[in-house]
Amino acid sequence: MQGKMKAAVLTKPGHIEIQELDIPTPGPDEALVRVRAVGLCGSDVHYYEHGKIGPYVVTKPIILGHEAAGEVVAVGSEVRHLKAGQRVTIEPGVTCGRCEYCKSGRYNLCPDVRFLATPPYDGAFCEYIVIRADFLYPIPDSMSYEKAALIEPLSVGLHAVSRGGLKTGETVVIMGMGPIGMMTLLAAKAAGAGRVIGVDLERFRLERALQMGADGVVNLREEDGMEAILRLTGGRKADLAIETAGNGKAAQASLQAVRRGGRVVLVGLPQEEATPLNIPYIVDNEIDIRGVFRYHNTYPTGVAVMSAENLNLDPIVTDRMTLDETPKAFEKAIKEKHSTLKIVIEP
Amino acid sequence: MQGKMKAAVLTKPGHIEIQELDIPTPGPDEALVRVRAVGLCGSDVHYYEHGKIGPYVVTKPIILGHEAAGEVVAVGSEVRHLKAGQRVTIEPGVTCGRCEYCKSGRYNLCPDVRFLATPPYDGAFCEYIVIRADFLYPIPDSMSYEKAALIEPLSVGLHAVSRGGLKTGETVVIMGMGPIGMMTLLAAKAAGAGRVIGVDLERFRLERALQMGADGVVNLREEDGMEAILRLTGGRKADLAIETAGNGKAAQASLQAVRRGGRVVLVGLPQEEATPLNIPYIVDNEIDIRGVFRYHNTYPTGVAVMSAENLNLDPIVTDRMTLDETPKAFEKAIKEKHSTLKIVIEP
Amino acid sequence: MQGKMKAAVLTKPGHIEIQELDIPTPGPDEALVRVRAVGLCGSDVHYYEHGKIGPYVVTKPIILGHEAAGEVVAVGSEVRHLKAGQRVTIEPGVTCGRCEYCKSGRYNLCPDVRFLATPPYDGAFCEYIVIRADFLYPIPDSMSYEKAALIEPLSVGLHAVSRGGLKTGETVVIMGMGPIGMMTLLAAKAAGAGRVIGVDLERFRLERALQMGADGVVNLREEDGMEAILRLTGGRKADLAIETAGNGKAAQASLQAVRRGGRVVLVGLPQEEATPLNIPYIVDNEIDIRGVFRYHNTYPTGVAVMSAENLNLDPIVTDRMTLDETPKAFEKAIKEKHSTLKIVIEP
Amino acid sequence: MQGKMKAAVLTKPGHIEIQELDIPTPGPDEALVRVRAVGLCGSDVHYYEHGKIGPYVVTKPIILGHEAAGEVVAVGSEVRHLKAGQRVTIEPGVTCGRCEYCKSGRYNLCPDVRFLATPPYDGAFCEYIVIRADFLYPIPDSMSYEKAALIEPLSVGLHAVSRGGLKTGETVVIMGMGPIGMMTLLAAKAAGAGRVIGVDLERFRLERALQMGADGVVNLREEDGMEAILRLTGGRKADLAIETAGNGKAAQASLQAVRRGGRVVLVGLPQEEATPLNIPYIVDNEIDIRGVFRYHNTYPTGVAVMSAENLNLDPIVTDRMTLDETPKAFEKAIKEKHSTLKIVIEP
Repeated sequence: MQGKMKAAVLTKPGHIEIQELDIPTPGPDEALVRVRAVGLCGSDVHYYEHGKIGPYVVTKPIILGHEAAGEVVAVGSEVRHLKAGQRVTIEPGVTCGRCEYCKSGRYNLCPDVRFLATPPYDGAFCEYIVIRADFLYPIPDSMSYEKAALIEPLSVGLHAVSRGGLKTGETVVIMGMGPIGMMTLLAAKAAGAGRVIGVDLERFRLERALQMGADGVVNLREEDGMEAILRLTGGRKADLAIETAGNGKAAQASLQAVRRGGRVVLVGLPQEEATPLNIPYIVDNEIDIRGVFRYHNTYPTGVAVMSAENLNLDPIVTDRMTLDETPKAFEKAIKEKHSTLKIVIEP
Repeated sequence: MQGKMKAAVLTKPGHIEIQELDIPTPGPDEALVRVRAVGLCGSDVHYYEHGKIGPYVVTKPIILGHEAAGEVVAVGSEVRHLKAGQRVTIEPGVTCGRCEYCKSGRYNLCPDVRFLATPPYDGAFCEYIVIRADFLYPIPDSMSYEKAALIEPLSVGLHAVSRGGLKTGETVVIMGMGPIGMMTLLAAKAAGAGRVIGVDLERFRLERALQMGADGVVNLREEDGMEAILRLTGGRKADLAIETAGNGKAAQASLQAVRRGGRVVLVGLPQEEATPLNIPYIVDNEIDIRGVFRYHNTYPTGVAVMSAENLNLDPIVTDRMTLDETPKAFEKAIKEKHSTLKIVIEP
Repeated sequence: MQGKMKAAVLTKPGHIEIQELDIPTPGPDEALVRVRAVGLCGSDVHYYEHGKIGPYVVTKPIILGHEAAGEVVAVGSEVRHLKAGQRVTIEPGVTCGRCEYCKSGRYNLCPDVRFLATPPYDGAFCEYIVIRADFLYPIPDSMSYEKAALIEPLSVGLHAVSRGGLKTGETVVIMGMGPIGMMTLLAAKAAGAGRVIGVDLERFRLERALQMGADGVVNLREEDGMEAILRLTGGRKADLAIETAGNGKAAQASLQAVRRGGRVVLVGLPQEEATPLNIPYIVDNEIDIRGVFRYHNTYPTGVAVMSAENLNLDPIVTDRMTLDETPKAFEKAIKEKHSTLKIVIEP
Repeated sequence: MQGKMKAAVLTKPGHIEIQELDIPTPGPDEALVRVRAVGLCGSDVHYYEHGKIGPYVVTKPIILGHEAAGEVVAVGSEVRHLKAGQRVTIEPGVTCGRCEYCKSGRYNLCPDVRFLATPPYDGAFCEYIVIRADFLYPIPDSMSYEKAALIEPLSVGLHAVSRGGLKTGETVVIMGMGPIGMMTLLAAKAAGAGRVIGVDLERFRLERALQMGADGVVNLREEDGMEAILRLTGGRKADLAIETAGNGKAAQASLQAVRRGGRVVLVGLPQEEATPLNIPYIVDNEIDIRGVFRYHNTYPTGVAVMSAENLNLDPIVTDRMTLDETPKAFEKAIKEKHSTLKIVIEP
């Protein structure tokens, strides 16, 4: 398909322009997708503000956005499982398929992954993208593109819960009830958690967590976190704590929040390199700490979870905007943190 | 069996007396064991020097020693699987069998465990002890009591390797080549490790590690640890690192010593409560950190491993002494660290 | 507590008498429970009809019933976690706590288990029973005794699902929608199954399965099972099949019902010793087959699952009767199979 | 590289010709390998005799042989981790890298695999082959090409042992001591098995098993298998049985050979589709049965295991022949079963 499309391009930190670009052409094993919904992620905002995340530096104009879904417009000559017109969700990391990590099933650790909106690769805040067809997953007619797009952050939650080894009926504490915390809540519930307790500093977020099914919440501005967790768990503590706040103190608290033999999953990235952790406590109590980087093999599960009949994401999706409003969306995400959770762009 | 026995009693910190005590009488589910070999453990030395370990305080005279083996002398009325004359190794922690940890197989986390030589329970530096019969495991005639006694520290190594999820052919780095490091080396080799690399500051220990089958050693006094590990692993790093030194810097180095997706097992107890660890690194690389507290279900495996025909523990057992020499053994353990690894008392 | 109680005693096959017996006295680690609800299980009916199950033979009068809940009336001197007045569910198998199976967490395989209503041990179709206190689990005030009693068959389902390694979002086929099939359905849903498909010959049961949340059902009287499963799974087959019908043909069909790399869990006991299974198919497709015998460590999970607010067991509990009606209950279970699922006795 | 090479071509069942063919040219992600050693496998012999295995039918001339190692001669433009001159072992199944099985790490179940010497794909009984470079693994200078080639059947053993969940010190029974049984013995020992017991009908094979390190052997011509296993395990039976004989009776015996909670791995393909198995026994004892189809992620482990200093394969490799002798090798494999284990062709 030839022609032009609109794209929201980050030309320099803090500056996004709506540009006209050529519609890309799919290779033999790729598909062209008309983007219908893209979530705005904290990492997009970080690139927007700082021009880099760790070793990934924006050195030329880039299209951000990696939580995306849309409609297949054309497929390459080798693609058999998809056809034009199909509604799909997009797994944004294209892996090599040949390294030891890909071959052993942990393809999120592939050193050669090309991930949407991670420099130098463009993302999905635009009308059309091309991606390898095996990273597209059909969705049911009944699923909105918005839900399909948010399978991406849900995948982080699903992987965190899976790495956490959640067993049916267990109690989970989630530190941080931002969008990733919320998705982790959804994932934990879907995976059979008995009780999920959300912890945050913002009343607004905790109310939304309760609306999304949290069994208890702890507002650290209003009460002592440890006391609250003991109270909410009948003195037993949690089986699993998942840290999504990206905060060293929350990581420390996660260790204390689990029972002997409990597990702590670290998802959030603190700004500091060094966080003091209590090794004698980890040893005495045989705590497991497990890092989580993105996800693997979560999309079929994510489609199943997002297909649940009664699932309502309105408490999480606080804003819906057009592609032209992308610059405004970034500014809102930065300035109105106390009322914004997930913003979805609908190109 | 009535009568008197000799016992080495810690009457106050730094002071051990050889006393005459009554031989204890086994209850219906217990056995009386004539102790034949007892290893001297770092925790025994710590009680001797400081009178406590963490929350466990010596408040009255205590018999130390928990790495023990001997001969069954008498059994209680309900004991069926043992009889007098049988040679056995002793698992020193008697658990409740009824709590959630016991019932789920992680009985090392049982809150009601009674562990030999952990106050207020006496240990095995004496001629006879009584213990619940299900914690006694018969050993082959060909196994020395010394080897049978050292199944206890070997169990720590076996549990560490098991918690580390070692797969056949993987590369393991062991931080600290003291007795627990040595036993972890044995355990890793028995479990199918491809390469085991020992790290320490003492040339004496590293030489012994090579004699025990280490595939490579790193002397931190002589070279940079990280460079050495990269060199010894062809740039790939290890799959698993096991920290036995009880040192925060070694714990930090363990994180760096493993590849993406690698595992770090913490066995040693640093003196400090807080060790700065790099959470962004743990997250980005999906590192697992797993605490190890004692062991569970290791004794049958330990008997199998210690039965290996060519196993020679001489590089590890640096001293063998009589029960009367127990005070001297403690002093040697403290003062001659550069030439002492494991001391075994033979009552 | 002294006095007399009523009990339904199987005096010979096919004959149950209501007798007056002494109320039993709890030992130091036991509790006396006033029984409030007891489910009638297929194994009870089998003892009633045939006087034996495999090697277990009724040689003297026995009280049947092992799916029970009630109120604690008195506790032995060593019992600390319970007190009179507490509402509890009863795990009916008292294990030794000392064998390799108990110590490794698979206590359902304990060779010395004493299981309620398995000869020579009496069960719970009576007003009071005594049981070791660590096999009693407090239930919330909001949970009915009926639900609490049915945590026992739910445990079979939970263990089957756990042995089946169910992952969030997976598709499960359950062969046989009798009470165990129904409880497996509940367990699979609670554990995060994406779709659960029930298979049976009885329209009545399949209707009840749909009421309990099955996503699809297959009536083998009306359609080809394999075609139906392919249709209901979009041609992909299930990830996991659980055979609860106790039927060799259903076991064979289970193998065909799962995808490559799928798992089959066998719960039901066919009458025949030999069932022809297709080994080349098992090998080519790397199918796993896993036997399930009772359960272990399921009660806390069962309490959590049965506590779900909207859980309605009316489609499963087809009859509720008094202790005096126990003989009638057995006859109904035998004669009215087409309309009876679970009968609960309320002593 | 242009030119001609010799190849042993199966032109019709029972007839192999040495032909001159063009040396193939590697694509951008492939390598050209000078073949130095190729093992003759039972499946090769089956194609030679019957012209097919199950659904795989030889419809045109084919080069057999898939257990191969050699020297890299040339690499495609995209290949970075290999260069000409490097000695390598060849993993013979090239997978798609994009299906759910590939992405989840079980790539042996990839429906689109192209496997050497499985119609319509040619194998390695020739001087040169081309293969995707990520399926080539460098070997140490000290490893012979013969050992490197036999990493292929060793991989079957490694995968069987891995699927069997072998824990350090456990007892393993292997049914059938042909080449796959022997390699499973090696794999079990490398993975830390405590005792490995080999079972076969041929004294010749059992003697070789003892030479390769079996701890006990059972000759079913001379004693009752079950009695022998009870005797060799002190009445406890094995923890794991691995069936490599491709015999229904051996599969049945495997079930009986393991303790309660034991595991049975099925590797061999019986000729019959239906084997009567005892489901009540499987259920009562919670036996696991796990099929094994080829292997995945075993080559790095295989390189590690084959690198063991004292490993001597002479008891297994009964014959070494030239490429010209390939027809004779097939005839010997068929006619001299009582003295032939593994034949290796050295082109």
